Amino acid sequence: MYRGMQAASPSLAGATLAAVRARRPLIHCLTNPVAATLTANALLCLGASPLMAEAVAEMEPVVAAADAVLVNLGMLSPARLEAAHAAVASAGRAGRPWVLDPVAAGAIPARLHSAQALAASGPRLIKGNASEILALAGAGAGGRGTDATVAAADALEPARRLARGSGAVIAITGAVDWVTDGDRVVAVHRGHALMAQVSGMGCVAGAVAAACLAVEPDGLVAAEHALVILGVAGQLAASRASGPGSFVPAILDALHQLDPAGDALRL
Amino acid sequence: MYRGMQAASPSLAGATLAAVRARRPLIHCLTNPVAATLTANALLCLGASPLMAEAVAEMEPVVAAADAVLVNLGMLSPARLEAAHAAVASAGRAGRPWVLDPVAAGAIPARLHSAQALAASGPRLIKGNASEILALAGAGAGGRGTDATVAAADALEPARRLARGSGAVIAITGAVDWVTDGDRVVAVHRGHALMAQVSGMGCVAGAVAAACLAVEPDGLVAAEHALVILGVAGQLAASRASGPGSFVPAILDALHQLDPAGDALRL
Amino acid sequence: MYRGMQAASPSLAGATLAAVRARRPLIHCLTNPVAATLTANALLCLGASPLMAEAVAEMEPVVAAADAVLVNLGMLSPARLEAAHAAVASAGRAGRPWVLDPVAAGAIPARLHSAQALAASGPRLIKGNASEILALAGAGAGGRGTDATVAAADALEPARRLARGSGAVIAITGAVDWVTDGDRVVAVHRGHALMAQVSGMGCVAGAVAAACLAVEPDGLVAAEHALVILGVAGQLAASRASGPGSFVPAILDALHQLDPAGDALRL
Repeated sequence: MYRGMQAASPSLAGATLAAVRARRPLIHCLTNPVAATLTANALLCLGASPLMAEAVAEMEPVVAAADAVLVNLGMLSPARLEAAHAAVASAGRAGRPWVLDPVAAGAIPARLHSAQALAASGPRLIKGNASEILALAGAGAGGRGTDATVAAADALEPARRLARGSGAVIAITGAVDWVTDGDRVVAVHRGHALMAQVSGMGCVAGAVAAACLAVEPDGLVAAEHALVILGVAGQLAASRASGPGSFVPAILDALHQLDPAGDALRL
Repeated sequence: MYRGMQAASPSLAGATLAAVRARRPLIHCLTNPVAATLTANALLCLGASPLMAEAVAEMEPVVAAADAVLVNLGMLSPARLEAAHAAVASAGRAGRPWVLDPVAAGAIPARLHSAQALAASGPRLIKGNASEILALAGAGAGGRGTDATVAAADALEPARRLARGSGAVIAITGAVDWVTDGDRVVAVHRGHALMAQVSGMGCVAGAVAAACLAVEPDGLVAAEHALVILGVAGQLAASRASGPGSFVPAILDALHQLDPAGDALRL
Repeated sequence: MYRGMQAASPSLAGATLAAVRARRPLIHCLTNPVAATLTANALLCLGASPLMAEAVAEMEPVVAAADAVLVNLGMLSPARLEAAHAAVASAGRAGRPWVLDPVAAGAIPARLHSAQALAASGPRLIKGNASEILALAGAGAGGRGTDATVAAADALEPARRLARGSGAVIAITGAVDWVTDGDRVVAVHRGHALMAQVSGMGCVAGAVAAACLAVEPDGLVAAEHALVILGVAGQLAASRASGPGSFVPAILDALHQLDPAGDALRL
């Protein structure tokens, strides 16, 4: 057990899934074109309602109508960055939780600069791989494109400092995922190696986390449950898929079929 | 039978499908990134040829070469709105029929404003869910993100007024679809609930309608046949799919396999 | 045997595939939204690492980190064209090979103009269908949207001239693919008709070629091996698919499953 690890909320991930399905939260996603379709479909299969508007002029009413917001920096363009800042400002005014996914912040200096400004703007959760979190924590960049070059656990202490400094929960995704709010630390041992062989699956994790934040006020619990839900769906899908191609429809089907009362979602 | 309902054209949807396959119309689509890939593939499976150019400078030759045009307002950006107006002007000059899909016009005020301007620019068909059509008809907005909050039938009288005012055929999609040109009204009882659980399926309906408009001059008949063709493919796909994920390849396969002479497409 | 045809490198396409898997080259793709997800997933299944950044300000570090670059002109926007020129300049400085895919250059005059400027900027490979290659070679445009209107072999002599003039290897895709560096000519008899019924499959071929260029310095051999690898995967997928929809996950699975030592990849 990791030094300083504390027990997460004892509530079940299944209860969070049931709440998403019951309330059908509207999740506004600012995300990249490669992950956008998979993200929208994953939210639908989870039981949430995706909204993907991008125009700056639409951010205020869209965020006000949303229950939570995802700001994903993959393939960041100047226009989407401007929309992100508008969305974050609207989320602040409307009191909506939002997730920052600093894609490739470890590998591209301009991306890191944008991610740092957004990380200081009040996200409820920052979700990234180890290289992205290390870069945001000022603990050395690294990363190769969108890939991490270190294990998630190696980013844990910097992540705890980043959590304390930013006020955000930090989720580090990897073969084992780690979530911390600076004090509490939880590990999630779910998921399957095929998830890393599908482009945009990490982006989907951020969207699922946003949906969980819409129904679960404790950011650490929401992030943990999101990673459990997606990881269990990934394990189920891997048992049915022939490779990364057939894994995509399979994980969407699995998200749709997950039984909130089933043992698989018991922590 | 709905008051004022008249019989639609007695021709078979299969004949329209056969004409699409024989002529392979070039369909220019201005659409949103979430639906773009599915839309292009659905048109290919139907037997049409998709073209997805977006640059304003390319609109004139692209629309002149196309047989019909789709203008979908999902994830509308200032650049795509400018391209839409250029495409619509070119379509007017070249005499090409075009479809307006006013995505989320019921939920986002700026989107409604853009949709109203385009609706007044001569679309042959406007296709939306009930909330979108009600908003365009000035009969109260509503809608939650991209979802309708009322049943399609409840938008029918406003749709008839919108048809008379705009000169466009209006298609209201839902569990039952309704199509009207202001005088004639037809209902389409096809499709499957899984279609609403895939992001972009409504956008695909607009593209299929554009393909049918390219071969069928009566807009009401083209829209009805498009909804029958897509709905029948959806029913076939639902019988083979395990959930919304596997439904996507299944409905594309089904569109490709549809027999124009089969009973399923007989109205 | 085509007049002037010479034997290609006797090395196996399987050896090139094995090298991609061993080195996992980082392939930076500037490509269109319709093909972007499929392209990223195809590169992952092949064993390469995709990166899809688009902002001009990110091009220099992204290209410097990449092993090869793809510049695909589908759905070209002014912003992506500016990024393409920045990427090409960075590739020149960093000595990275890059592939030009002049999508629809035969059908859209402004697209041809952009493609000509890029073709003169030092691509290692230009890959297109016959209409696109004929247009670039100044031998008459044509093409209908993204489709070729002539057979690949009919573009071979103009392609040889284009190769000599530009210094690039030219790959003409079609039912039979042809590759030439101006002197050597090879034909690739692989692939399946279903590949032409999936939007973006030609774009994927350009990305696979970029991955092969990252590990194989002879551009003609890299392009030939890329078309063999993708074609064999397509044949395998076609034997398992029920139509163009199920063909997409099937070809991704097939790319992932290809045995570098198997007879299928022996030329």
